[in-house]
Amino acid sequence: MLKFLLCLLCVNQAFAKEIFTDEYIKQVASLRDMALTDSTAYEITESLTTEVGARLGGSEGDAKAVKWAVAKFQELGFDKVYTQPVTFNKWVRGVETAEIISPFSHEIKITALGGSNSTANEGITGEIIHFNSLQELKDADPSLVKGKITFISDKMERTKDGSGYGKVNGGRYYAGTITAEKGGIGAIIRSIGTDNNRDPHTGGMKSVDVNKETGEMRFLNEKEVVPTGAISNPDADLLVNVIKRGKPVVFKYTLGSHWDGEYTSQNVIGEIIGREKPDEVVVIGGHLDSWDLGTGAIDDASGCAITMATAKLIKDAGIQPYRTIRVVLWANEEYGLSGAREYAKVHKNNMDHHIIGAESDFGAGSIYAIESNVAEYSLPAVAKMAELLKPLGIGYGGNNGSSGADISPLKAAGMATFKLAQDGTKYFDLHHTADDTMDKIVPEEIAQNVAAWIVFVALAAEYQGDFGFNLNTNK
Amino acid sequence: MLKFLLCLLCVNQAFAKEIFTDEYIKQVASLRDMALTDSTAYEITESLTTEVGARLGGSEGDAKAVKWAVAKFQELGFDKVYTQPVTFNKWVRGVETAEIISPFSHEIKITALGGSNSTANEGITGEIIHFNSLQELKDADPSLVKGKITFISDKMERTKDGSGYGKVNGGRYYAGTITAEKGGIGAIIRSIGTDNNRDPHTGGMKSVDVNKETGEMRFLNEKEVVPTGAISNPDADLLVNVIKRGKPVVFKYTLGSHWDGEYTSQNVIGEIIGREKPDEVVVIGGHLDSWDLGTGAIDDASGCAITMATAKLIKDAGIQPYRTIRVVLWANEEYGLSGAREYAKVHKNNMDHHIIGAESDFGAGSIYAIESNVAEYSLPAVAKMAELLKPLGIGYGGNNGSSGADISPLKAAGMATFKLAQDGTKYFDLHHTADDTMDKIVPEEIAQNVAAWIVFVALAAEYQGDFGFNLNTNK
Repeated sequence: MLKFLLCLLCVNQAFAKEIFTDEYIKQVASLRDMALTDSTAYEITESLTTEVGARLGGSEGDAKAVKWAVAKFQELGFDKVYTQPVTFNKWVRGVETAEIISPFSHEIKITALGGSNSTANEGITGEIIHFNSLQELKDADPSLVKGKITFISDKMERTKDGSGYGKVNGGRYYAGTITAEKGGIGAIIRSIGTDNNRDPHTGGMKSVDVNKETGEMRFLNEKEVVPTGAISNPDADLLVNVIKRGKPVVFKYTLGSHWDGEYTSQNVIGEIIGREKPDEVVVIGGHLDSWDLGTGAIDDASGCAITMATAKLIKDAGIQPYRTIRVVLWANEEYGLSGAREYAKVHKNNMDHHIIGAESDFGAGSIYAIESNVAEYSLPAVAKMAELLKPLGIGYGGNNGSSGADISPLKAAGMATFKLAQDGTKYFDLHHTADDTMDKIVPEEIAQNVAAWIVFVALAAEYQGDFGFNLNTNK
Repeated sequence: MLKFLLCLLCVNQAFAKEIFTDEYIKQVASLRDMALTDSTAYEITESLTTEVGARLGGSEGDAKAVKWAVAKFQELGFDKVYTQPVTFNKWVRGVETAEIISPFSHEIKITALGGSNSTANEGITGEIIHFNSLQELKDADPSLVKGKITFISDKMERTKDGSGYGKVNGGRYYAGTITAEKGGIGAIIRSIGTDNNRDPHTGGMKSVDVNKETGEMRFLNEKEVVPTGAISNPDADLLVNVIKRGKPVVFKYTLGSHWDGEYTSQNVIGEIIGREKPDEVVVIGGHLDSWDLGTGAIDDASGCAITMATAKLIKDAGIQPYRTIRVVLWANEEYGLSGAREYAKVHKNNMDHHIIGAESDFGAGSIYAIESNVAEYSLPAVAKMAELLKPLGIGYGGNNGSSGADISPLKAAGMATFKLAQDGTKYFDLHHTADDTMDKIVPEEIAQNVAAWIVFVALAAEYQGDFGFNLNTNK
């Protein structure tokens, strides 16, 4: 890290002027400042959430979203608009009820985790066995779990960078399979979220097995995974308080969710064609699908909107960069990463034409840092980005950056990546819940995102060197 | 007002010592300070919300709450515990669904207003006519409303004293009747609340007609009132955004709520018997019922708990005051004020034995002011209370104070009243919603309430003068 920073500092002074013309830098800085009061991204977010709303992969909303996206790219004046078919197994939600039956009766708000199979129509009724963490469940003697409903209750910690999420979401992913392995009949978890609303957080769970050699996918059977739901934070608190009384606690829940055949959705793609290297691309975007509980404003209408607005404002400023800007609105990120995986497969033979990529998929909070994952020799270009981002209150976090989920298959295939880190302090209040709605978007914050993305995209697409390839394979 | 304040200042210095002994004042001050770190009220709130939970008047939860309250008063060591039957018409909630059908389809969260009749099983489907306020609906030409579903969209303002509530809750009360009067087929309102969660706020609406002469009650028929629901703030924002597109908006909703015969609940009463005037009482309390959507932590388990803990801590300190402290947990406040009305009826011939009364029914936020409504000659006693409350950051707001809802029938019957005003900045985020749960109670804040109530109750019950009677009739 120190090496990179020193390198950045020295190269920055000596060579930065040679990478981009003064005039171009001035133009980008001016566009950046203009974007701070521009409402394009806010309006796109409002449009998608109002005119389409919830758009779970495979749902009617998904199909509407694809149509909306094609029309919106065209309306925004993109040079080229097209779609790329993405076929995946469709998962649908059904009835969702839950209650504490004894020693005190309470109605409980539950939501199925993505991938969960249904319970029988009459639901699952059983005694709760309480674990403070996934690790406690893993460590539990199977004889204690057998015939019971497991309940993992650890609460996600609020952090700016969202790092609290990774500490607890293993419980969401593995509760169903580990419970089944130990002979449990059902599993519920405290929502992975930082709010105290009665709206539970959904999210993906382990429900398929992928053969590592053949890549073939197989649905887990009912002996391998139990129907699993998340209950809201206040309900989890209540259940913990009931459990504290020391009497056996009987719980009942019903989930109607299940896998339901195949569906073909689309990655929707809009391009601003590069003037010299039209076939070489800077890939940006967000995912077009959302969970079904809210209208998917922060996850991820805002990411689609930020990247669409970025490309549009660059084009409207009369900039036709050296390389192509490709905005991809990814299909079915939420329970399959389907669009990104399909894209990586289709482009496996020209992945080296993908110069650098980034995704916006962490809400619409202000950006406070950038991170790169590029070849060392391209750090002067990153330094120039950092210099132009500094006035927005954005710092440089080093060259070992992570990337968005949809970027990960491309990164694995060799592409250099970039991250614009957003303030996620409030993100997990809303993430994957019914509360993910348009009223949560702050116009000034989403505009600041676009201003920052303009700097990254305008410089990355104009940069005539490259950012390296197969960096992570070579490391 | 100035007169009262001057009076307070002079009398305070000259005569305060004559009203209460120095020793008593010292004892109360010490109890007040101890109460700041006492957890009794927090624990009572936790007990009611965990062991009973939702307790709508007439529900199974109501019956459980009555049993809970009798047992809790006994456990706390009250001198006398008894109940007073309260019969009322029972209202029950049923199925609740809503959706925007066109031009864009969205699932909407709706809740029936208290007293609303059901729609037909297939629901009500119709075009929305949008009003920015109740006044706009009142002013509307009936020909525009006929055959439509009305929608009032003004949003409640957040204030410390809750004064934003009164500015908009007329829409909740009258939307159903005024819509019916103008030939509308249904009515929905934006929730009366300050949050941005997807949980709609219920609350009472006009559904009965009371004959002013005979007092006889009559249910309004379906020509006089339409089924009425509240939608959440984010959904109201969405609907407004859809309406802004300028196309006809078709909405559908189904409510299964209805009136369902008579029910007899109980006011539950616990007393600390006075040493000299056992038949003369200081009446305090909260209401035992809650709406059915949450566990009724802030509305009004906390009010019950604050007043129960106050009396218990006074008794535990070895204080047996001059007059009796009567804690009444009122039945069915939410959709009838049934317990308070019954109490006033039963006690109409000995109302003058009710020396002063107050209710805690505004959550568990810290108290920042007191107000009195007493005879001028008793203001020196109030001044002494104010003096002892000052260290808690509590100011005196004058002698023209309002009172809690359950106190109003007693006030109308002549009783002097007192108000301990709580910080309600966040109260209407939770009020009448599924989010009204135990996790919202802040231990330090509810303890501060008890500390303040101890000062009021210990001095009011020890005061050997009176606070006046029929003050508001004589004014």
